[in-house]
Amino acid sequence: MSKTIAINAGSSSLKWQLYGMPEETVIAKGIVERIGLNDSIFTIKYGEGQKFEQIIDIPDHDVAVKMLLDQLIDLGILATYDEITGVGHRVVHGGEFYDRSVVIDDEVLKNIEALADFAPLHNPANAMGIRAFKHLLPNIISVAVFDTAFHATMPEENYLYSLPREYYETLRVRKYGAHGTSHRYVSERAAEMLGKPLAETKIITCHLGNGASITAVEGGKSIDTSMGFTPLAGVTMGTRSGDIDPSVLPYLMEKLDIDINEMINILNKKSGLLGLSGISSDMRDLENNMDKEEVRVALDIFADRIRKYIGSYVTVMNGVDAIVFTAGIGENDSATRANIMSKLTWLGCELDAEKNKERGEELEISTPESTVKVFLIPTDEELVIARDVEALRR
Amino acid sequence: MSKTIAINAGSSSLKWQLYGMPEETVIAKGIVERIGLNDSIFTIKYGEGQKFEQIIDIPDHDVAVKMLLDQLIDLGILATYDEITGVGHRVVHGGEFYDRSVVIDDEVLKNIEALADFAPLHNPANAMGIRAFKHLLPNIISVAVFDTAFHATMPEENYLYSLPREYYETLRVRKYGAHGTSHRYVSERAAEMLGKPLAETKIITCHLGNGASITAVEGGKSIDTSMGFTPLAGVTMGTRSGDIDPSVLPYLMEKLDIDINEMINILNKKSGLLGLSGISSDMRDLENNMDKEEVRVALDIFADRIRKYIGSYVTVMNGVDAIVFTAGIGENDSATRANIMSKLTWLGCELDAEKNKERGEELEISTPESTVKVFLIPTDEELVIARDVEALRR
Repeated sequence: MSKTIAINAGSSSLKWQLYGMPEETVIAKGIVERIGLNDSIFTIKYGEGQKFEQIIDIPDHDVAVKMLLDQLIDLGILATYDEITGVGHRVVHGGEFYDRSVVIDDEVLKNIEALADFAPLHNPANAMGIRAFKHLLPNIISVAVFDTAFHATMPEENYLYSLPREYYETLRVRKYGAHGTSHRYVSERAAEMLGKPLAETKIITCHLGNGASITAVEGGKSIDTSMGFTPLAGVTMGTRSGDIDPSVLPYLMEKLDIDINEMINILNKKSGLLGLSGISSDMRDLENNMDKEEVRVALDIFADRIRKYIGSYVTVMNGVDAIVFTAGIGENDSATRANIMSKLTWLGCELDAEKNKERGEELEISTPESTVKVFLIPTDEELVIARDVEALRR
Repeated sequence: MSKTIAINAGSSSLKWQLYGMPEETVIAKGIVERIGLNDSIFTIKYGEGQKFEQIIDIPDHDVAVKMLLDQLIDLGILATYDEITGVGHRVVHGGEFYDRSVVIDDEVLKNIEALADFAPLHNPANAMGIRAFKHLLPNIISVAVFDTAFHATMPEENYLYSLPREYYETLRVRKYGAHGTSHRYVSERAAEMLGKPLAETKIITCHLGNGASITAVEGGKSIDTSMGFTPLAGVTMGTRSGDIDPSVLPYLMEKLDIDINEMINILNKKSGLLGLSGISSDMRDLENNMDKEEVRVALDIFADRIRKYIGSYVTVMNGVDAIVFTAGIGENDSATRANIMSKLTWLGCELDAEKNKERGEELEISTPESTVKVFLIPTDEELVIARDVEALRR
């Protein structure tokens, strides 16, 4: 058995999952939080519900990775560092460089850092994670799995904005999309559940978490997606506005006397379900406050925007075989799923009210008569990362 | 016969049409251009193809209106000013004040001017036209017909942006829509062509001119529309970008070293078909340059964005009876109509290729088998204005 570790590094966090491959067993997983701050939190879950937790100052990602590897040895999960046969890193932005996962060499790392312009919060953090593992495990294969790669198949008419063409040609302003690893995983699973060859399927995947995006997947390829140049675009999200008239920006900037960066910060951090409800970006908090009119309207807007993207993507593919719900809200929130689907009956799409009560397990939730299938498919981006490492290691 | 004049006043222009009512005959029509500039152009068309044209300096709207009325008398079209029984003004923005046409009194005029904040290029010009006619025809009824009024029936979940709610509550930032008079006219005609009571219809109206908007009309009421807080939002247009990721703005502002106003100006004036093609915003110019890849892509993007709105509005209404094409491009451009409809066959919607070659006349252009009807309906906003004046005069 080879041991592959899947990494998701943030600016002050490091989330990881250790797999036994090719069996795809999760050997251990954990997270290091508050890296670079005091009282960092270091957690490992392993074995049969066992947990190791420590509060300690962790100054940087290098120290975090060293602690993690040493602790895995202390806990008897690894015998030596060398037992790790591959490291896979989630990387948010691959720009137009990468349409699939790649082995990270100096050039790849340079490109990831150069793309910080497009993903200033994420790519530099991803690069920190990559460097930290490279320091400690210099001889072990390191793979980048890009959130954008799955969307590299979008045709020009779907990724270009209606802007002067030179902004694309010289500044690479275009739609890149996000959550690609998740859309790829659940669309592949959906094709299997449909019992059809992937190449013959038309699938709409709804990744609904605190960030949310909808993708039109035709023949296994992303041909359109709701997130854009950045993850701000598309549907209403926890704290993000999604699509709005760009003219709203100068109007609010003048009225509120704020600059463009403050404005974009509001659109990213204070809008969406949080801004509309005035209460929370968390679906559970909202569903506990359904007596409030603002909350009901916020949830209706959330469902409406997702539903509209589904309708538009049926049109993009001139048909649809299955609609998939995944990620935190998609997997667990039956009320939201029911709300979204309530106006898709014209599609020949009928939800099974009983099955829709399920959560977090792979399931067909449409009725047998429904001409368009609706699936609940828990996503597993870490597993995709581990698989991509294995594929590139051979 | 009473004589009603329908006015569309711009900052340097005044377009008008004189109707005999209730017969709805066009007695004369014309335009005054370059008001306030030198060599203003003054044109009247009347009778059997007769035309009066004059190049002369016209300093302001008051002078333009006086010239117009005097010339109508000189040409024998009017005997005296008093023959005009009503004046109807197109007003771009009615904010949340007006859900229908109203007689203009001091308060209405004040509100129109106060709404300049939302329509800085249009409302002040509309108000100039209103004042000029009030000066010269102080005793004659004057009616405002708002572009936004038809969209006043949109439900909250469709007009609210996913922003902090206070921006709506205190600053009235919301979706207002535009082209309402046109969407209203063609949706009413479509219901007649369907032979169904308006209240039972689900119609998607595509007003495709240099500005373009798509509306979901359910039971005769606008319930969603693609233009937003301003006419910049929605589909790709002649020179406007339509919807884009708001994060594109700070990125381009930094790279191009421009401020927000310059940025919005680019999105309004240099984007859309013009920006994508690098050639023209005019559909005829583009269709003469189909050998150029950029032009083909621009036209595909135009069709794609319209098609996506159609798909999303089928979802908003959970069904559709008819899709309507109107305005310059919608009425005349069969290639664009065919391109849009090419991926709507999943809807049970089939275009009749022969009928689709027609232009500028009221026509069903779907096949008899098509379960969703497609109509070509020339819009007539001036006629609606004249009718609304007549209705309010009685």
